[in-house]
Amino acid sequence: MTQTLSIKTSQKLNLSPLSMPNRLLLGPGPSNSHPDVLKAMNTSPVGHLDPTFLHLMDEIQSLLRYVWQTDNAMTIAVSGTGTAAMEATIANSVEPGDVVLIGVMGYFGNRLVDMAGRYGADVRSITKPWGQVFSLDEIKAAMETHRPRILALVHAETSTGARQPMEGVSELCEKYGTLLLIDTVTSLGGTPIYLDEWGVDLAYSCSQKGLGCPPGASPFTMSRKAMEKLLNRSTKVKNWYLDMNLLGKYWGSERVYHHTAPINMYYALREALRLIAEEGIENCWQRHQKNVEYLWESLESIGLKMHVEKQYRLPTLTTVCIPEGVDGKAVARKLLDEHNVEVGGGLGELAGKVWRVGLMGYNSRPESVDRLVSVLKEVLK
Amino acid sequence: MTQTLSIKTSQKLNLSPLSMPNRLLLGPGPSNSHPDVLKAMNTSPVGHLDPTFLHLMDEIQSLLRYVWQTDNAMTIAVSGTGTAAMEATIANSVEPGDVVLIGVMGYFGNRLVDMAGRYGADVRSITKPWGQVFSLDEIKAAMETHRPRILALVHAETSTGARQPMEGVSELCEKYGTLLLIDTVTSLGGTPIYLDEWGVDLAYSCSQKGLGCPPGASPFTMSRKAMEKLLNRSTKVKNWYLDMNLLGKYWGSERVYHHTAPINMYYALREALRLIAEEGIENCWQRHQKNVEYLWESLESIGLKMHVEKQYRLPTLTTVCIPEGVDGKAVARKLLDEHNVEVGGGLGELAGKVWRVGLMGYNSRPESVDRLVSVLKEVLK
Repeated sequence: MTQTLSIKTSQKLNLSPLSMPNRLLLGPGPSNSHPDVLKAMNTSPVGHLDPTFLHLMDEIQSLLRYVWQTDNAMTIAVSGTGTAAMEATIANSVEPGDVVLIGVMGYFGNRLVDMAGRYGADVRSITKPWGQVFSLDEIKAAMETHRPRILALVHAETSTGARQPMEGVSELCEKYGTLLLIDTVTSLGGTPIYLDEWGVDLAYSCSQKGLGCPPGASPFTMSRKAMEKLLNRSTKVKNWYLDMNLLGKYWGSERVYHHTAPINMYYALREALRLIAEEGIENCWQRHQKNVEYLWESLESIGLKMHVEKQYRLPTLTTVCIPEGVDGKAVARKLLDEHNVEVGGGLGELAGKVWRVGLMGYNSRPESVDRLVSVLKEVLK
Repeated sequence: MTQTLSIKTSQKLNLSPLSMPNRLLLGPGPSNSHPDVLKAMNTSPVGHLDPTFLHLMDEIQSLLRYVWQTDNAMTIAVSGTGTAAMEATIANSVEPGDVVLIGVMGYFGNRLVDMAGRYGADVRSITKPWGQVFSLDEIKAAMETHRPRILALVHAETSTGARQPMEGVSELCEKYGTLLLIDTVTSLGGTPIYLDEWGVDLAYSCSQKGLGCPPGASPFTMSRKAMEKLLNRSTKVKNWYLDMNLLGKYWGSERVYHHTAPINMYYALREALRLIAEEGIENCWQRHQKNVEYLWESLESIGLKMHVEKQYRLPTLTTVCIPEGVDGKAVARKLLDEHNVEVGGGLGELAGKVWRVGLMGYNSRPESVDRLVSVLKEVLK
């Protein structure tokens, strides 16, 4: 041991054991986790090359394919939160100079623009007012103009609660030799997704919304076509942590060490996926739809309006218009401080105009709706 | 809800609730966590902008400064494992064309070379046989030759168990206007580190070794000088998830949303750091040193030899020479399968030549040594 210099203690805190409030999380995520999921996470970790852990990784891969309805071999959980999985799709698909066409209908479309630019893409974008979605004709026109190498769409825009229909998009991509990349952060587990049927080449999501798991390990998938582009790159992926060439050797049969996985997060994710398989993914989607319809009716019954046109609303996340004269931020703060209920505020174009109400995963239950509406009524009166 | 196509169930698994073996983790990490840390992680998450969570982030920042002995304002936990924090130091400090001098004395020096290259650095390296460290004269000569913008050294080489002395290095860096970047993945919490006294500008670590926490949230720090380089960049950081310009606005007073933090991982990290503060960092270092000396004596008493010269050995991780004629991999597998004890194998130059034995965080206890030596004796006989 080298000589001990004197120890600075100015940053040393004397803390009590952790004590956090028990919130009902009805914002845009994280949502509350199923108690069994938390319990699984509380298991002592094994090593990241332990045969039992490698087996658990296989289970996660299979179940992610099931919930996403894909057979993509390269389907894994990235060791970070949803944004890391988002960056993984960009980092592994974009080479400098690639034309990337991005549909921006909210905050996360803009984030894709920023990210793709950092990886050297020639970014083109089309935009919609926040809360609306693109028609197939609009996408078609942009594809004809830009002939992109990659088309990136946000299936579920977490900032607006709008669901982008995917029907017909893959035919356009096929015509132009375009890879299709979609954001399913707020749709996975909560609303129908058929990655293979939709011809999706790259997708990402998170654990803490429709899957009902704490944040920290995030679904990523890429098709064989996307893998081919990766294998034929002339430059290394500009991100070591998220390089699927390397990660594929850890998740695949070679089992080459890449990084120390967040073991307990994988325990939790495995458990969350197990519970969804037990329920059946189609039942899980139906549960989300049924409960959100109950939410919409209940909110309308106390005079509130939804921001997004009904047919494009997500079952997982609803943007609720803040009535004129009401201080939305103050209401949200009161819900949190006085009632332990979290709802989210608006971002960007919708800042100050909407609350974002999530009914995701374990929280998609009639009791969540009843509690929210009851406390909201009280705070708004 | 869009029309339900038929559901593919080929990837649907019917699983039992999670059940993992209870291992004593004496490899290079993860190590076992303190039970209080696991308990904290098992707390229902709050939102990433919840005032109680923002307060907890402040606590983590303060305690990280304490264990690292630094006053750097920009001291945070990155939302990924140690490799993500490693990449964060490179991504935020390297601009294309920067000369980066890297000391390679094991696997993780090589990883730094690979990463820095991906971010456009003009990489120069000096090397040492695995298990040795650089003398100050060797570093000085390389600094004179290369005049680097950044000097990257591995303080604790996880692949070899060697500790690079840091005395005198900062004077060289000052002379050449060089930023000093160090890897403290296997040293933080287990062996003396004085970042400010050593003039370190960038450092990273992990949660799952000396801090005794599961992997998933990783310490990162940068000095004012490193921040200035970041603020004066002519190009955006080529990594959105790890961009400290953006992360600084979430961890700092502005509290601008960046990504959904892995809430429960931060609970665990806060608790692990709280326990270290309670013990006192200098006592924690001494405990690691005392227990590793007991390990070395015990291993020597059964005829085993250590790979690294005593004065450069880490207290957290020991490379033990595999005796001639012994199949090291088979022994490690037997320890795991028959005794639930994990030790690591060698990497790179040391593959097949050493076992890597960690005594880190909660596992740095005489009982860990006794159990290992007793089962090792049995397996080796």
